[in-house]
Amino acid sequence: MSLHSVIMAGGSGTRFWPLSRRVTPKQLLAITSDRTMIRETAERLVSLTPFATQWVVCGTVHADAVRKELPELPRSHILVEPVGRNTAPCIGLACIHLLREDPDAVVCVLPSDAHVSDAADFCRHLARAEAAAKAGFITTLGIRPSRPETGYGYIQTGKSLEVGAGMAVHRVERFVEKPDLATAQKYLASGDYLWNAGIFVFSARQMLAAMQKHMPELYTSLMALGENIGTPGYDARLAELYPRMPSQSIDYGVMEKEKDLAVVPSTFGWSDVGSFAALPEVLGVDEHGNLVRGTALLDGCRDCVVDSRAGRLVAGVGLGGLMVIDTKDALLVIPKDRAQDVKTVLEQLKKKGREDLL
Amino acid sequence: MSLHSVIMAGGSGTRFWPLSRRVTPKQLLAITSDRTMIRETAERLVSLTPFATQWVVCGTVHADAVRKELPELPRSHILVEPVGRNTAPCIGLACIHLLREDPDAVVCVLPSDAHVSDAADFCRHLARAEAAAKAGFITTLGIRPSRPETGYGYIQTGKSLEVGAGMAVHRVERFVEKPDLATAQKYLASGDYLWNAGIFVFSARQMLAAMQKHMPELYTSLMALGENIGTPGYDARLAELYPRMPSQSIDYGVMEKEKDLAVVPSTFGWSDVGSFAALPEVLGVDEHGNLVRGTALLDGCRDCVVDSRAGRLVAGVGLGGLMVIDTKDALLVIPKDRAQDVKTVLEQLKKKGREDLL
Repeated sequence: MSLHSVIMAGGSGTRFWPLSRRVTPKQLLAITSDRTMIRETAERLVSLTPFATQWVVCGTVHADAVRKELPELPRSHILVEPVGRNTAPCIGLACIHLLREDPDAVVCVLPSDAHVSDAADFCRHLARAEAAAKAGFITTLGIRPSRPETGYGYIQTGKSLEVGAGMAVHRVERFVEKPDLATAQKYLASGDYLWNAGIFVFSARQMLAAMQKHMPELYTSLMALGENIGTPGYDARLAELYPRMPSQSIDYGVMEKEKDLAVVPSTFGWSDVGSFAALPEVLGVDEHGNLVRGTALLDGCRDCVVDSRAGRLVAGVGLGGLMVIDTKDALLVIPKDRAQDVKTVLEQLKKKGREDLL
Repeated sequence: MSLHSVIMAGGSGTRFWPLSRRVTPKQLLAITSDRTMIRETAERLVSLTPFATQWVVCGTVHADAVRKELPELPRSHILVEPVGRNTAPCIGLACIHLLREDPDAVVCVLPSDAHVSDAADFCRHLARAEAAAKAGFITTLGIRPSRPETGYGYIQTGKSLEVGAGMAVHRVERFVEKPDLATAQKYLASGDYLWNAGIFVFSARQMLAAMQKHMPELYTSLMALGENIGTPGYDARLAELYPRMPSQSIDYGVMEKEKDLAVVPSTFGWSDVGSFAALPEVLGVDEHGNLVRGTALLDGCRDCVVDSRAGRLVAGVGLGGLMVIDTKDALLVIPKDRAQDVKTVLEQLKKKGREDLL
């Protein structure tokens, strides 16, 4: 029952445009350090799951880049999705591959593009989740909230569980969707709610059993595909079966329906780095509230985010709460509180046929 | 008594950074059209003073670029200042050269970097000023103000003058410095005040006589230099004498002291295009108040100025009253009402030793 990790790298990461593009989504970018997010994620796991026991699930167009970023991983551990199908098929795909290598595999699945400030603490919590998984629980890491965030889903904790010695493990009372501000404030005040970071630890066999129960159609497709692993017909079968799998999240497809779920309340400093506006929280700011990456000259600017790593000097005068993201061929200027609206830019670029910038 | 024009191109034009640089100041940039300001100025004059009768006074580092921009001008008509000495020495220098070609020269001196919306109307006013100059007046074109502008000097008109037939010519009552807003509003309401556009028409001989009277030191230097024109010793003499000439404006040094001054009230649509913030007035705006040059995608932006002619796409979301000026190696983001503060950026660049960007 050894631990494996599955890094989910299927995201298209449009919210980091113009840094992120179709061919280089967020996980393949150096957003929070000078290493790519996926490389950071893999290195963070190494003390618990060495590279030889790490897996990545990613899209066709990103497979080469992932292999280049993580050359230590066995080639067979880079699993390619012909199309994105959300997290349930992604995790199912990983499970059928894993079980051929290790029928007793315990798996940690996690996003490829989140930030963790304390890697050692992260691993301690993950080891605890591994113990809970080995005791029979599909286990998740729930992040102790530091603010009434409306951008994350939450996990309500239930009764405390006895799972050997160490930090607390609780039953999951329920998963809840992104709340409004008032609800988020209630969650924060109650102390019973944790952020859902999309990090799950479980026995692969148990996960497939849960899929059989809650997502039988998916399960059937996975079994049909599983027979072809290691055969010349695998790619064709994958291309045939995968697009037809239900596009559903593991949260909705399995977690919200399962009973025996555990959660490890965690405090390792976590962010999904949902947009440039999340960077100050992760990377810190100077005495004027500004965060600068690259070369910038800010005069009388407050609470700005500047990324000018493309080499050009960015000069800002008298700006407040503004983000300036400069790349070789495109520049974005957007208020911090409009960060999500970068998608409208992408829609318009698409309309205008500027595929070169997407 | 034929007309010549002298285009004063000594400006360093820092207010258009990052478009303008030491080697390419405003007059050498395509700011208001796809032609450089100096080329526009020269072409505007052609119907009154053909290229063969045009002169330019410019700095050493710009001489080659000016020759390239205005290949039609006789090489001897590009007069190079070893250092900038404001407009009085500049005009004096032009006069001593001009008088060697045409002892009865009437001269129109004007800045190289102003915008005129109606060139034909401009030439009609200039012809009228020529007539007044030939009648013995140092004459200026005064722009009928359209708003209480505090960025320009003003000319108070006096009694009407009889100078042949045609549009009105007045005596100049006085020149006044840039006023505060209340004073500018009074000026506008009175109808007696015109903007000082720095455009003067006069007999070269008469101008030198005025300098002899009001700026005797300058006059002496000019006469000493004049003896060397056309000799091998000219450049050395220029380098010796010019830097010691008083750095003074023609307005302060001559105009404010002269009695026989005339002004032609003018309506040809003029702007000194003092900064990027002046561009909307000159070039117009779209239905959202935005002015875009180059490729930009603006979503929910109002009253913005974007120059992205360096080729990069500029995407703006939810911006108001902001200017984004993108060049190959530097980008400026600054509120419209802070346009003048671009100079602080230049000071800081200098401090940081970024001579490459100045």
